Amino acid sequence: MKERKIILPEKDLPRKWYNIQADMPNPMQPPLHPGTKQPAGPDDLAPLFPMALIEQEVSRERWIDIPEEVLDIYSLWRPSPLYRAYNLEKALGTPAKIYYKQEGVSPAGSHKPNTAVAQAYYNKKEGVNKLTTETGAGQWGCSLALACNYFDMECRVYMVKVSYHQKPYRRSLMEVWGADVYASPTDLTQSGRDALAENPDSNGSLGLAISEAVEDAAGKSDTNYALGSVLNHVMLHQTVIGLECIEQFKLINEYPDYVIGCCGGGSNFAGISFPFLHDKIRKDKPVRAIGVEPLACPTLTKGAFTYDFGDVAGFTPLLMMYTLGHNFMPPGIHAGGLRYHGESPLVSQLHKDGLIEARAYGQEGVFEAALTFARTEGILPAPETAHAIKGAIEVALECKEAGEEKTILFNLSGHGHFDLTAYDDYLAGKIRDVEYPQDEIDKSIASLESIR
Amino acid sequence: MKERKIILPEKDLPRKWYNIQADMPNPMQPPLHPGTKQPAGPDDLAPLFPMALIEQEVSRERWIDIPEEVLDIYSLWRPSPLYRAYNLEKALGTPAKIYYKQEGVSPAGSHKPNTAVAQAYYNKKEGVNKLTTETGAGQWGCSLALACNYFDMECRVYMVKVSYHQKPYRRSLMEVWGADVYASPTDLTQSGRDALAENPDSNGSLGLAISEAVEDAAGKSDTNYALGSVLNHVMLHQTVIGLECIEQFKLINEYPDYVIGCCGGGSNFAGISFPFLHDKIRKDKPVRAIGVEPLACPTLTKGAFTYDFGDVAGFTPLLMMYTLGHNFMPPGIHAGGLRYHGESPLVSQLHKDGLIEARAYGQEGVFEAALTFARTEGILPAPETAHAIKGAIEVALECKEAGEEKTILFNLSGHGHFDLTAYDDYLAGKIRDVEYPQDEIDKSIASLESIR
Repeated sequence: MKERKIILPEKDLPRKWYNIQADMPNPMQPPLHPGTKQPAGPDDLAPLFPMALIEQEVSRERWIDIPEEVLDIYSLWRPSPLYRAYNLEKALGTPAKIYYKQEGVSPAGSHKPNTAVAQAYYNKKEGVNKLTTETGAGQWGCSLALACNYFDMECRVYMVKVSYHQKPYRRSLMEVWGADVYASPTDLTQSGRDALAENPDSNGSLGLAISEAVEDAAGKSDTNYALGSVLNHVMLHQTVIGLECIEQFKLINEYPDYVIGCCGGGSNFAGISFPFLHDKIRKDKPVRAIGVEPLACPTLTKGAFTYDFGDVAGFTPLLMMYTLGHNFMPPGIHAGGLRYHGESPLVSQLHKDGLIEARAYGQEGVFEAALTFARTEGILPAPETAHAIKGAIEVALECKEAGEEKTILFNLSGHGHFDLTAYDDYLAGKIRDVEYPQDEIDKSIASLESIR
Repeated sequence: MKERKIILPEKDLPRKWYNIQADMPNPMQPPLHPGTKQPAGPDDLAPLFPMALIEQEVSRERWIDIPEEVLDIYSLWRPSPLYRAYNLEKALGTPAKIYYKQEGVSPAGSHKPNTAVAQAYYNKKEGVNKLTTETGAGQWGCSLALACNYFDMECRVYMVKVSYHQKPYRRSLMEVWGADVYASPTDLTQSGRDALAENPDSNGSLGLAISEAVEDAAGKSDTNYALGSVLNHVMLHQTVIGLECIEQFKLINEYPDYVIGCCGGGSNFAGISFPFLHDKIRKDKPVRAIGVEPLACPTLTKGAFTYDFGDVAGFTPLLMMYTLGHNFMPPGIHAGGLRYHGESPLVSQLHKDGLIEARAYGQEGVFEAALTFARTEGILPAPETAHAIKGAIEVALECKEAGEEKTILFNLSGHGHFDLTAYDDYLAGKIRDVEYPQDEIDKSIASLESIR
């Protein structure tokens, strides 16, 4: 019997997060205040975030301690298992070895609690008793609800109205963990009331839900706002994923040639790849990190590296990143978590400097990969995660072509138990490749000229 | 940091199932042919089951080898983790230690694949290429679909029509693994056509779905039928759960005083408790095994120990078991897997002989326990599983009352990711205790006189 699972003992759970800002050949450009266009300082962020997270946002310390209280909650599901995908390898007939990190074992079903727990902890420690956030499909909202539950904090989630009604299961799960979930637009905020005045039947949007959550938090001393991706401290917290992988590979005397993750805002890709990039930068390890995105929202592969707003409304600081333009409206694909116009500034800078690679795939191939995975390894992946699987399969097939016995690692960032409608559509032949027209992308990017 | 997870290395996965028939003080009574009322022999079962499973059904061998091919698939998720529920203990303020076995980590989300994989394997080995079965909420159908996928077998699932429409996610999951799922009643069988002739709008029932699945298999040499609970070979395959627990407790030098499982047809309770009953019978270990059922369907606590049909229609052999009468129609509770009028004959005989205990709880208390668990340990349990949690909490509170530091083990038989409607109802205050009136139970049991 082959050993499939590489289990890191609980006592070996990493005690520090890795901060890639210590090792980047070129530091990322600073965020700019949306009004003055001057570098944004801690004071600009203080109304929304606790000082500990603001410090992490700009820190150049290489290793940052994971607080004991956070480790205690991590240990409910961490270290997560690393799997050797023997069945998938066999189905592909590849000489490559394929490993995947199973982040779907968290109670919320994805990697998102790695940062949600840390964010809740630091807020609570600074006397904040309530967090607001937005959620689309609900992965992030569930994770923050879980985290707030553990620190006895209130959690208010503005859920895009169309998702609130289409994905009632994720809403229920947030409520099980004690969160208050509102269909956005609401009449609780001025942004919401304005939107409802304009259109009482508004289905909402992620941009609007962000505005509501930020507005709710900005004016109150006991309330902060939490973001599930893009920012540096989020990337930092997710590095626990890759750090565990490195220890797990040591147990079997292996090291990957490729590290692959799907890429929306960048957090799960950063989480699995940054610790390996540490080895690449500091120890000359020839590891290749590949971010995989949908052809429908090809930020790294077709976007511009420039300053842009993080949100649609233009409330956030300007971030230097790969972007399709904040007015870019990606077509409706099932991988909702990858429908983001921008990209983490850290991931963006690393891509600009050639330290990571990016690939984009169409939805048909992505779902075909998901089905292959579910029928070989058993686990049903989230549609976002299926992009990483597609990437891993493509690399494994390239290895087959070349006769190379490479080692591939990908991040199984979440399960698809709440995404079965997407599989229904695929099995019914309703999922087609959607590629965004290049001239539309060019137009959207050109419009950014005006904000500089 | 406390160590929460007790992980058994993959190489220590049990190599044999435990057959409690070798050790029972009183053997179970034989099943009777429904027509002749004489003991049913292998020939009576041969049209539906492969000989290997029929042999397991009557074997008195204590240890039965788990085939290498079955172990290989088990190893995708087994050994499953044993957890110390520190957070739950703290919330209850109990001196008792609470452990739970996490069977929700299987790809199908419950313990059911433990037997589905074995059944598919033995059928395939005897040249059967297609299995039929029925499913209500879909837990069992998903597990058999997964298993057939691994052995390249066709899988046809008759899903009760009302569930087919109400639980589309589980239907989708079966289809992801390649099963054909039909809303029963269908026009594929005579039983189905008869039902549709009588009522074209029939919502179906589990009894009818069984009739369709059995009829489909009975006439075809390449097709067999598979059952997910009740029968002896099903209990046998599930003992891998308890056998792993024993090894995991050895790793931490512990042994439980209580072993608790929810009880419908009996398979997850048998799976976790039978290996401990081996120790109780042969080594005088004072372990107490407790089966927990709903007050709405109180088979062990209020049923009669007598011969009855396994199904509603009266097609199956007569089984000597605790039963509420095969015409007993339990009220509609969310724990669909516990709405069964009878009980595994093995579990029943052990209860008759005082080797196990049973408790029944109402739905409100059960869901309160589920919420307490989700908010402490994080994991969302299935409504069936929540009965075991309620039992464990009650015992832990008794220990608190008595000041006893006992060790409690329960089976977390499955997750509730597809059961969030039930939680919605609970949070909306719509779940009420339903106790079946004793005189109705008496009447239903009295009606069994006629079949003897």
